[in-house]
Amino acid sequence: MAKKASSSGTIFRPHFKTHQSLKVGNWFKDHSIDAITVSSLSMAQQFAETGWQDITIAFPANLREIEGYNRLSKEINLNLLVDSVEVIDRLSADLNADTGFFIEIDTGYGRSGVHFGDEDRIKSIIAASLHAKNLKFIGFLTHSGDTYSAKNTEEIEMIYHRSVSELQKLRNNYPQALISVGDTPACSIVDDLSEVDELRPGNFVYYDLMQYKLGSCGLDDIAVSVACPVTGIYPDRNEIVIYGGAVHLSKESLDSDGKLFGLIVKYTDDGWTEHIHDTRLISLSQEHGIIRTNTNFLKTVKHGDLLGVLPVHSCLTVNLLTDQSIIF
Amino acid sequence: MAKKASSSGTIFRPHFKTHQSLKVGNWFKDHSIDAITVSSLSMAQQFAETGWQDITIAFPANLREIEGYNRLSKEINLNLLVDSVEVIDRLSADLNADTGFFIEIDTGYGRSGVHFGDEDRIKSIIAASLHAKNLKFIGFLTHSGDTYSAKNTEEIEMIYHRSVSELQKLRNNYPQALISVGDTPACSIVDDLSEVDELRPGNFVYYDLMQYKLGSCGLDDIAVSVACPVTGIYPDRNEIVIYGGAVHLSKESLDSDGKLFGLIVKYTDDGWTEHIHDTRLISLSQEHGIIRTNTNFLKTVKHGDLLGVLPVHSCLTVNLLTDQSIIF
Repeated sequence: MAKKASSSGTIFRPHFKTHQSLKVGNWFKDHSIDAITVSSLSMAQQFAETGWQDITIAFPANLREIEGYNRLSKEINLNLLVDSVEVIDRLSADLNADTGFFIEIDTGYGRSGVHFGDEDRIKSIIAASLHAKNLKFIGFLTHSGDTYSAKNTEEIEMIYHRSVSELQKLRNNYPQALISVGDTPACSIVDDLSEVDELRPGNFVYYDLMQYKLGSCGLDDIAVSVACPVTGIYPDRNEIVIYGGAVHLSKESLDSDGKLFGLIVKYTDDGWTEHIHDTRLISLSQEHGIIRTNTNFLKTVKHGDLLGVLPVHSCLTVNLLTDQSIIF
Repeated sequence: MAKKASSSGTIFRPHFKTHQSLKVGNWFKDHSIDAITVSSLSMAQQFAETGWQDITIAFPANLREIEGYNRLSKEINLNLLVDSVEVIDRLSADLNADTGFFIEIDTGYGRSGVHFGDEDRIKSIIAASLHAKNLKFIGFLTHSGDTYSAKNTEEIEMIYHRSVSELQKLRNNYPQALISVGDTPACSIVDDLSEVDELRPGNFVYYDLMQYKLGSCGLDDIAVSVACPVTGIYPDRNEIVIYGGAVHLSKESLDSDGKLFGLIVKYTDDGWTEHIHDTRLISLSQEHGIIRTNTNFLKTVKHGDLLGVLPVHSCLTVNLLTDQSIIF
């Protein structure tokens, strides 16, 4: 991803919400990355404490956290997201250190951000920010999460190009504004990303079954698995129960011949095998996971063995298995 | 629940996995409860450290945790769950302090446990345990999680009675064995629980929308909500975005006119209001929640307000918002 960003001539500001790890974060330094994205103030605080000096919190600015923004802005280069005049006015009044902001644009996903067609609102936000001595307009930012509903990679490319084209139209009136985009499907699939100024993908660091289904990656690219002990073997129904439930993996599922909560691998000395044929995690309760398999594989499994689960959504799984109070 | 257990003459061994809280746990002491259920060794260790002396880990014994069981069995009265001869043999060989065990019975849920019809397996497990000097057979335990798929409260009662009747048949050959049951729907709905020896419900301590849908509780009985700041207001689509996503609430949903991830309440000086009419959490991503509402309610909401979310599954929500490294 760093190579693609570099050859496209764009700033690479990877999203660290997927790994939330100091160690994985440091790998990016080897690629000369010094600006990052996070999804919460607490994540920003933790990465700032470990030396990251340029952080965008890619979540709509939360008026209940202004005190935290102020503390952080004194120490690092902090960027926030804004999509309303009301929030700009409050930030103007209460921020007391230099803070950048992106206007978040909704290019079709329908979650947060100013709708791309609402140029009046965009104008008002920028106008309101001009009076604020501590707020600096950086550019237009979008998360085109609609790529996650795409039926194929062509549709992902189409969503990307439509989204970038809307941001470019907005930039016509504000030539100094950066354009920042970020979803992993588009950043993985689109080859030439040179039309934008900044890329913020995060999930690609581990990928997962959802990204595989979308075509963002191969199964071999999935770089995280959860090691789950076998605690039950049921030959009469070809099922195995593991200690690995919703509190470890999250309840994210894919619809693929019934609900799929994960694929199963076996561990080797230096990693894991391909996923076991005809074997899948079909159900999760709080701590239990049920794997349905075939007689041949079931015969090879013993109580206490470790099976690996390739998760559906690595961000949620890693979040559950990361101690939130420290960055490891 | 304590009153119902007491009037039914059954042991009340509440499941603490829902609240995972020392403080909430202490409320049970006021009802003379001194035996509890948890779902993991680490939870057992933490409650043991805070003075609980009689704990059942209601999850199939995990051969990778025998060392932990040994440490704990020296300090408290510990019970494990077993459903195979293989595990009994390993526990026999490796446990070095007195430990109780229940045989987990699958009375129809199809998750873990010996199928109720497999009397040979039950016989073999008990026979194998007789040679073990540190293992003591306590009784038959089931979690009738099939009540969660019931269409109405009559079906929940039927599942309960069928399940208890299967356990009673097994007990005919082992008159000293206790019968332990535990799901919140049945424990909430069935009035007379005197046919069993022990009750282990957990979720009832907070309840949630899933239990409400099943008929286990009223909406007024839901005793947990998540306070989420408003970070986006979108009058054109009657939607509000809150800082409250899958990492706070979990992705558990109900199918109820489309996916439902929570109902919305407003906070008052001493609690919260009834849920807001025509207003529901319809979508969750990692940190964002999208509430769909009506024009009237939307007009009353401001950036930075706190809205309360009644969760679909309180066990998963509380687990996400509890610091796993301490019991608070």
